Amino acid sequence: MPRTITRLLARDIRMPTSESKAGSDAMHTDPDYSAAYVVLSTDAGDGLSGAGITFTIGRGNEVCIAAIRALAPLVVGITLESIIADMAGFWRLLTGESQLRWIGPEKGAIHLATAAIVNAVWDLWAKIERKPVWKLVSNMSPEQIAGCIDFRYLSDALTREEAIAILRRQHPTRSAREKEMRAVGYPAYVTSVGWMGYPDQQVRALCREALGAGWTRFKMKVGRDRDENIRRAALMREEIGADSLLMMDANQAWDVGEAIEHMRALAPYNPWWIEEPTSPDDILGHAAIRRAISPIGVATGEHAANRVIFKQLMQAGAIDFCQFDNCRLGGLNEALAVLLLAAKFEIPVCPHAGGLGLCEYAQHVSLIDYICVSGSLERRSVEFADHLHEHFLSPIKARRGRYLVPEDPGFSIEMHPHSLDRYEYPHGANWRAK
Amino acid sequence: MPRTITRLLARDIRMPTSESKAGSDAMHTDPDYSAAYVVLSTDAGDGLSGAGITFTIGRGNEVCIAAIRALAPLVVGITLESIIADMAGFWRLLTGESQLRWIGPEKGAIHLATAAIVNAVWDLWAKIERKPVWKLVSNMSPEQIAGCIDFRYLSDALTREEAIAILRRQHPTRSAREKEMRAVGYPAYVTSVGWMGYPDQQVRALCREALGAGWTRFKMKVGRDRDENIRRAALMREEIGADSLLMMDANQAWDVGEAIEHMRALAPYNPWWIEEPTSPDDILGHAAIRRAISPIGVATGEHAANRVIFKQLMQAGAIDFCQFDNCRLGGLNEALAVLLLAAKFEIPVCPHAGGLGLCEYAQHVSLIDYICVSGSLERRSVEFADHLHEHFLSPIKARRGRYLVPEDPGFSIEMHPHSLDRYEYPHGANWRAK
Repeated sequence: MPRTITRLLARDIRMPTSESKAGSDAMHTDPDYSAAYVVLSTDAGDGLSGAGITFTIGRGNEVCIAAIRALAPLVVGITLESIIADMAGFWRLLTGESQLRWIGPEKGAIHLATAAIVNAVWDLWAKIERKPVWKLVSNMSPEQIAGCIDFRYLSDALTREEAIAILRRQHPTRSAREKEMRAVGYPAYVTSVGWMGYPDQQVRALCREALGAGWTRFKMKVGRDRDENIRRAALMREEIGADSLLMMDANQAWDVGEAIEHMRALAPYNPWWIEEPTSPDDILGHAAIRRAISPIGVATGEHAANRVIFKQLMQAGAIDFCQFDNCRLGGLNEALAVLLLAAKFEIPVCPHAGGLGLCEYAQHVSLIDYICVSGSLERRSVEFADHLHEHFLSPIKARRGRYLVPEDPGFSIEMHPHSLDRYEYPHGANWRAK
Repeated sequence: MPRTITRLLARDIRMPTSESKAGSDAMHTDPDYSAAYVVLSTDAGDGLSGAGITFTIGRGNEVCIAAIRALAPLVVGITLESIIADMAGFWRLLTGESQLRWIGPEKGAIHLATAAIVNAVWDLWAKIERKPVWKLVSNMSPEQIAGCIDFRYLSDALTREEAIAILRRQHPTRSAREKEMRAVGYPAYVTSVGWMGYPDQQVRALCREALGAGWTRFKMKVGRDRDENIRRAALMREEIGADSLLMMDANQAWDVGEAIEHMRALAPYNPWWIEEPTSPDDILGHAAIRRAISPIGVATGEHAANRVIFKQLMQAGAIDFCQFDNCRLGGLNEALAVLLLAAKFEIPVCPHAGGLGLCEYAQHVSLIDYICVSGSLERRSVEFADHLHEHFLSPIKARRGRYLVPEDPGFSIEMHPHSLDRYEYPHGANWRAK
């Protein structure tokens, strides 16, 4: 029996994280971690629904809700089977809508909205198959995975045939890596010790706690004040020791020349990478920074809008680490495209996470990368932040610096009904009380 | 007396242009030319208000309205004088809002919204000064013009000091160019003869009519069907003759390799430029196409999100013509930045126009370019489309292939109240009748 999508519900969910400065950085001083939350219902009568989110940091979440509602007529009334039969076609239906594409194309609110809807479809599909999304994809043939990808604008860097060849290379050994992941988990690094707005004592205490729990990879925020950056880097190194990895994140604070100067000053603290040293749109700028500060790695991606930007970051030799965000890209279909581009260019993917639900998404995508696409863990690490997981029905589990493999059906993104009700903006109990 | 902005009204205005196929191209088959229309009111009691728009093609206009409303609290309650005193700071206030920037940054719906608000401020300011916007800027010193620009992310290509030097070079001779413009107007080319959806007979008739009216530069739409492109190019050449300029516009239809193949096939029809041959985000792709099809020029910009993209298009040698859109960039402040980048890299600016109100904006910006920035008309031409000007209080005037200089105070973008009422979506008379 075909299953028709009968309803798309979009809810504006905001967590008041700005009160604790969790998530604060050089450019985003007061984030309220938020989700434009999508629920797809069907006529199947089996109680299964698809959940998807896009992540924002508060104000503007309502703009994503408006964009989701603008896309909804493309999804409501069609069958899940017709979507699954042509996943790439479905993706282009959303991203290529002849009027809506004007307000992107493939960027900003409309692309964030696309992510929420596309990933809700994956969640629904995986629940029906009673598999976690990573497993659903791991059971697909190379041709089926490639069939999820819209190769428009990629063919000068990656053709469909090349993508299939990459996937075939890892196909025979998928089950060994799946077994390994179930045994040991996927490597991770921790961000939530080093938010910009945290006082020194809190950073020290969190570093000690994380070290004690087995973490060996840490990220700190840096910004425009050179002396403050150096002071905090010294503090972090003191706490985590010389052998732990230390990543730094500038969150777009610098011009190209400034990034080079700041990172030369921070080089003695041995950063593994500098993340978002400048504008996320500045491919050539990242390439110039990378040339100047080697061997410090350059990382970016959480604000890179789409596969075309990532294609160029790789073509230009601009990055050592690819950090796409599973809500910024237009859902898993486009994430698969970037995983394949990264495999072709031999760039490790370390997805952006943290926020609200981003860890939940990222674990699936990195498992797909390891099992199906790159077959490698080298220089790879999923971001981890210890916030807000309690709102999810199937929260991530992290132990001693690794994500444990999620086994529940779906994309791990469905939230508790009472969390949705409490934090719905502006009428949920949390916001009414303000 | 300081003048406080007391209200920001945002209205969703849509013209049913899809009914006639006006504006149709390879990717946008049925545009309804629309404006998210902003009115700024003040407490001055002089009856003056500031009007600004962002342009969309129908669905999604409501998403821009939501984005404008999200930005409104940054503008309402402050004085116009405080904005004028630090125009660059005002621009960064909007584009750098610590939560809203997440849904851009500086791209998509939130940046389109920024354009509408920023240009409404310019309209208000110019009306108070009783000058058209081009004249307001032409009366500013090089330092004052540079003071409107946020140089963040530009300094590796253009510093504030370089910008001032460029402006100083043209300063002593501004009045001669102003006089020239008032005498002869600014050169233009015509797009509205060659929309994709028009039948052959209509294209022929419109070409003849335009030739008879003195036009010598014409643009046609091309798309994915090679034979159809060739047939239409032959038809256009037959009508306009060998001496007229013929531009072609693919509206992002091709991958890099396809663009090269299609344009080699079209080379015999002597195109002056190919516009938007591929993804607007693909800087390196445009550079590759340009290398392959020289001497045909490469043009892009109507979908280029911000000054960082234009900086790279110029750094990479990717374009022969810069075609920014005055609603896609975040208003005149960012347009000034790109004019200065273009002057530095010696790339002619031929602004994107047509649509609804884009010609009205573009004439001011090209006059500023000629009078204050580049001092050159070489290879420059403003787009002209003969649609919808009747809705504006101070519509553009075009004669024999030139825009006549606008003399009314403001940015020429204020619309007739009865047009606003009739085409407001979804409750205006035009839409209620559907």
